[in-house]
Amino acid sequence: MFRRGDDNGEEESTVVLLNPHLSELNGDILYHLGLGTKTHDLVKMFGDVKFVCMGGAPKRMEHFAKYILTELKDKLPPGTKFQDMQEHSYRYSMYKVGPILSISHGIGVPSLQILLHEIIKLMYYAKVKNPVFFRIGTCGGIGIKAGSVVVSKGAVNEMIEPYYEQIVLGVKMQRSAKLDQDLAQELLSLSEPDDGFDLISGQTMCSYDFYEGQGRCDGAFCYFSEGAKQEYLKKLHDAGVRNIEMEATCFSALTNLANIKAAIVCVAFLNRFEGDQVCPPKNVLSQWEVRPQQIVARYIKRHL
Amino acid sequence: MFRRGDDNGEEESTVVLLNPHLSELNGDILYHLGLGTKTHDLVKMFGDVKFVCMGGAPKRMEHFAKYILTELKDKLPPGTKFQDMQEHSYRYSMYKVGPILSISHGIGVPSLQILLHEIIKLMYYAKVKNPVFFRIGTCGGIGIKAGSVVVSKGAVNEMIEPYYEQIVLGVKMQRSAKLDQDLAQELLSLSEPDDGFDLISGQTMCSYDFYEGQGRCDGAFCYFSEGAKQEYLKKLHDAGVRNIEMEATCFSALTNLANIKAAIVCVAFLNRFEGDQVCPPKNVLSQWEVRPQQIVARYIKRHL
Repeated sequence: MFRRGDDNGEEESTVVLLNPHLSELNGDILYHLGLGTKTHDLVKMFGDVKFVCMGGAPKRMEHFAKYILTELKDKLPPGTKFQDMQEHSYRYSMYKVGPILSISHGIGVPSLQILLHEIIKLMYYAKVKNPVFFRIGTCGGIGIKAGSVVVSKGAVNEMIEPYYEQIVLGVKMQRSAKLDQDLAQELLSLSEPDDGFDLISGQTMCSYDFYEGQGRCDGAFCYFSEGAKQEYLKKLHDAGVRNIEMEATCFSALTNLANIKAAIVCVAFLNRFEGDQVCPPKNVLSQWEVRPQQIVARYIKRHL
Repeated sequence: MFRRGDDNGEEESTVVLLNPHLSELNGDILYHLGLGTKTHDLVKMFGDVKFVCMGGAPKRMEHFAKYILTELKDKLPPGTKFQDMQEHSYRYSMYKVGPILSISHGIGVPSLQILLHEIIKLMYYAKVKNPVFFRIGTCGGIGIKAGSVVVSKGAVNEMIEPYYEQIVLGVKMQRSAKLDQDLAQELLSLSEPDDGFDLISGQTMCSYDFYEGQGRCDGAFCYFSEGAKQEYLKKLHDAGVRNIEMEATCFSALTNLANIKAAIVCVAFLNRFEGDQVCPPKNVLSQWEVRPQQIVARYIKRHL
């Protein structure tokens, strides 16, 4: 079942593709990235990648790429530039700064999942060794102060089970939503006294919805009471969940399958025990959004 | 449970919000749209909307808004302009051309669902009467020629069941994925002899994934054989499914709940019985992408 490396004498990628059919393809099209093994020299374009950073919104990932260029300028190879790779893709925004890729994955598991399939294949085809994947996101907190940053210990689904469930050919299958514990610990150690925010470890609940699925009472539809919602949030908290977002199970499970070290670092825009609506003004949210980027930038700086 | 209209003497919307909590809110923030009942005059901004057209990619929806302005210029109120409403939203692209809203929903159910919650509330707050919602998309065909356009009869999930399943407070709930049959029939009748493509009626299967979930053998992971895949596609075809995309169940179920007439019109980029990869060149795909827009534009023209 395993497919690792081609027999062409070059050193192979550490990324694992669990798909025997790929070797039978006459060239692979990474459709949503607008790239292909026949049309692009992927080793030349992406062979130097070491860190892949993903987040929902295109503007956040553009900001991150520019931020990392400034933050790490002494550490990056001489002449490293901000490269906008958007021309290739119609769906996702991708930026490259030397060994760092910064890509928007849109909102939710399906949108992220397409990107992961194609980025994992890209890493493989580009013969990348030991890449580290980060999700830099925003979330709702459970029993933590708004503005706090959560490093995920692992992910659970909406039933509070530690796996990612997918339906394949009409059959349900479950994949372990594990994250690298050493990487999470190291990220937690990068907190600095002047940061002005808490850096917290916790389980992350991944929902398929922002409203009912996360127990919000302010969507177009809501059939439950405030009391039932508080009970659910408490159940999550009791299970060690400290934040809710919309991608964690898929991100954990697929990187785990592909033998890729991965971490999820999200800032909480509110404490869900206290409400549903995201109330802080835009400029405050924008400042908070940079916090996970700061932590991940420190990690990259240390490992470049 | 029903909440219809405020007691302010103005005529109320036909859109139904099934959420008793909303009347207790001191102003509602449509967070992902960057709009609010306290910060914007939603009746003034959106009260004239009659048609809401959604599709995955921002560029497609920008194209559609411009296309509709040209196509319908004699039918639109004098002075109607192309309005870019992006300044409000950080996540979705929204354009307004007189009574037509054109909005990108991203990829997949979770991304669409957030938008639907907020657009349904927006229609309600703007006191819109009888809006018609369209999803204009791309898809994989099942036993139909590449380039054909499918008008969905209804939607089924990956288990080929006619409903949308959601988990709310840890409990599974099912919502009927029904679409308006008269609207679908009328759209089918708008085919013209010179169109150069087939306009087909069929069930639409909604998947949470582009690769394994749709039985593709070209993702980063694949544990099934080509034979098992063909069997699954045949099972779908036998159940009346003519295309697969990634939003249909949620779109059908939520518009249905909100008392909104809705239709899904998608062009097939390939016949999945023949392969997995999207091979036609970009310019051909771009031409095909306009086909659902043509059909929907004819409908709007007739009803303006």
